[in-house]
Amino acid sequence: MGSLEVGVGLLGYGTVGAAVNRLLDEGADDIERATGHRLRVVRALVRNPDGERSYPAGDGVLTTDFEALRDDPAITLVAEVMGGLEPTGEYVLDLLSAGKPVVTANKQLVARRGAELFAAAAASGTQLRFEASVCAAIPVIKVLRESLVASSVHRVLGIVNGTTNFMLSQMERGGSYADALAEAQRLGYAEADPSEDVGGADAAAKMAILATVAFGSRVALEDVSFVGIEHVTEAHVRAASELGAVIRLVGAATLADGAVDVRVRPVMVMRHHPLAAVEGAFNAVVLEGDAIREITLEGPGAGGLETASAVVADLVSVIGTTGTGFLQNDACWRELGKLPAGEWRSPFYVHLEVADRPGVLGHVAAELARHEVSVAQLVQHPRGEDATLDLVTHEARAGALESALAEIAALGEVLSEPVSMPVIAEAA
Amino acid sequence: MGSLEVGVGLLGYGTVGAAVNRLLDEGADDIERATGHRLRVVRALVRNPDGERSYPAGDGVLTTDFEALRDDPAITLVAEVMGGLEPTGEYVLDLLSAGKPVVTANKQLVARRGAELFAAAAASGTQLRFEASVCAAIPVIKVLRESLVASSVHRVLGIVNGTTNFMLSQMERGGSYADALAEAQRLGYAEADPSEDVGGADAAAKMAILATVAFGSRVALEDVSFVGIEHVTEAHVRAASELGAVIRLVGAATLADGAVDVRVRPVMVMRHHPLAAVEGAFNAVVLEGDAIREITLEGPGAGGLETASAVVADLVSVIGTTGTGFLQNDACWRELGKLPAGEWRSPFYVHLEVADRPGVLGHVAAELARHEVSVAQLVQHPRGEDATLDLVTHEARAGALESALAEIAALGEVLSEPVSMPVIAEAA
Repeated sequence: MGSLEVGVGLLGYGTVGAAVNRLLDEGADDIERATGHRLRVVRALVRNPDGERSYPAGDGVLTTDFEALRDDPAITLVAEVMGGLEPTGEYVLDLLSAGKPVVTANKQLVARRGAELFAAAAASGTQLRFEASVCAAIPVIKVLRESLVASSVHRVLGIVNGTTNFMLSQMERGGSYADALAEAQRLGYAEADPSEDVGGADAAAKMAILATVAFGSRVALEDVSFVGIEHVTEAHVRAASELGAVIRLVGAATLADGAVDVRVRPVMVMRHHPLAAVEGAFNAVVLEGDAIREITLEGPGAGGLETASAVVADLVSVIGTTGTGFLQNDACWRELGKLPAGEWRSPFYVHLEVADRPGVLGHVAAELARHEVSVAQLVQHPRGEDATLDLVTHEARAGALESALAEIAALGEVLSEPVSMPVIAEAA
Repeated sequence: MGSLEVGVGLLGYGTVGAAVNRLLDEGADDIERATGHRLRVVRALVRNPDGERSYPAGDGVLTTDFEALRDDPAITLVAEVMGGLEPTGEYVLDLLSAGKPVVTANKQLVARRGAELFAAAAASGTQLRFEASVCAAIPVIKVLRESLVASSVHRVLGIVNGTTNFMLSQMERGGSYADALAEAQRLGYAEADPSEDVGGADAAAKMAILATVAFGSRVALEDVSFVGIEHVTEAHVRAASELGAVIRLVGAATLADGAVDVRVRPVMVMRHHPLAAVEGAFNAVVLEGDAIREITLEGPGAGGLETASAVVADLVSVIGTTGTGFLQNDACWRELGKLPAGEWRSPFYVHLEVADRPGVLGHVAAELARHEVSVAQLVQHPRGEDATLDLVTHEARAGALESALAEIAALGEVLSEPVSMPVIAEAA
């Protein structure tokens, strides 16, 4: 990093790549003030150098030849903004093995191949940074790793998928799930095939990354239990509102008694919790730790310029710490166990459709009590001959609730499969 | 920084100092993983070495001799956690001039003597960091300087005083200003003499620091126009609620057309804005910029352990960047003008008490229109013979509204001095 000018290579020059180039151009003076160096894109790997670009690359910058980029001595560091797993993963591995620092915006790559990539970076003494892989411009990785380095974060709660948050916000205004999805697709928040978002897989990959960084123990994608929002209905959204809450797709990563639990679920968030205020396509992450109590970071969780902003921040951090040993190691340094299924604890919301007969409530309450689940709050509504029961329990073992609900479902007076969701109560 | 062990000096060993020592002890392994170094407090300057401490200092660590600390070759960096302006300022200046990096939690010191202290640090090629001086553990300085380095932040909105935010939250539950203050004092959120908090001076110092960092141009305490919450009444809080809003003491730093404007005011925040969800003694800062749209950071804004967490993060960042040139410069690099008084623009809330006679509304509306202030929303309530008018304007020049209100106050039908507040509408 001796010279003033630092050459940057880009893998990919789509929306995010072009925005990185633009921010590096427009922010060159700011970056020089912060680091003493000027960052300039000297090569960008693309499939088709003749396509149209939202911000032009310099003359001769676009190339289709990965080796030319990798072996260019003018390139000091590389940003991976092409996405996908193959050939992206091999490119990144190659660069790290060659000792080039890499910054990536690719959550699937980090969540699936993190262990291998960080090992390659460590072996050649270089850095792999990945702020942009989670929540775009919201600097949650830097805050976790640097600002909270001695704060022992023990829980991370996150609304980390903007598409589903937009849809749930829409449903609060009275629409159905189908309407909300159609609107999200119309606005470009949801893809034609929305399953990655609505099914929870996208949020699960992000939570795996956040849990790994927060707890220092590798959490792979397959360690994250996830449920999407496909079965959330207008009735649930309305019931939440009556209980002073909203429904959000929340990722929860918890470290308790040396075991890690990471899950993504539709959750009922009580109105005064910071996550209840997150509306539309925004993301938010709540970091809980002893020294900090609770810090919330909120902002846009997607977008080309927003993602590029995080990529540039990482490039600047690489320049600013090269040669110091600062945070050039993998975030992982231990292997924690997984909490056994059913052992996680939460208050729960339960929705039941029952025959409106005397005694039903007693039977339901008795089954819950037999499994040591106690009721904190209850709303009953007649619905013709039938009735709906919406209740919130005190904190209970998930396994215990599941057993209780299986027996409740078998009661003659219970007309449909019970629906349950964890509840996030007010902040401490 | 060659050796594994790095000696830390503390100026002060009160609640924050003891908490810094505790976090460095308990987080030593985490810090070593991040930086390759172990940080250990080797000397702490106190007035009375025999006092009781919430976390014990090591044998021989407490000293009453500043020179012994300054000249100790075992001390690589120093945290200032003693507070006050004198002799603190001279100590910090001395240390920086001697080339020792300093981390400070002292907002008054940074807001009043920043220029001089940063010049001393630059002259000797060392660092002065000040994360803990604003919003305790919320890492707003690091995020502004590092994560948003190329994002051109043009507005910073902040709830940066926990005492007043607690009081306003209390008043929403129906209490008077006096009740809320008494409760804040009972819980230790407000001092016996609360004027620094309720009058807005504390928030003004913090906003001066945030504006300086965000815009790269020195904003001194005397550049910040501030009004406290002493004149906020139950009636205003109730009116806000009717308009779908809450009242918050908000600092706003804006960069527009090359001019900076920094002010602290009671503000009506519409319910869906992120700042409306900030309750109790919490703080929050909203950073607005082109590339990031809007990022909100929220958390506890005070507390010994929370402040210590930010001090430790800064110590770690000093270690992690020493020798790289990264962010070792002053945040200031230009001199921007100040927006002339009255030229700032906002939507406004206006509260009027009027005689309940036909034509009053017409007279009020005509005066507003004559000054090019247009009404967006209005609620009128009879009160015996009289009535109250609560209205929200579209965006207007503050000077224009002031002139209009002066003429409205002179109308025969207007029974008391008009009250006005800026309004922060929903997020973009």
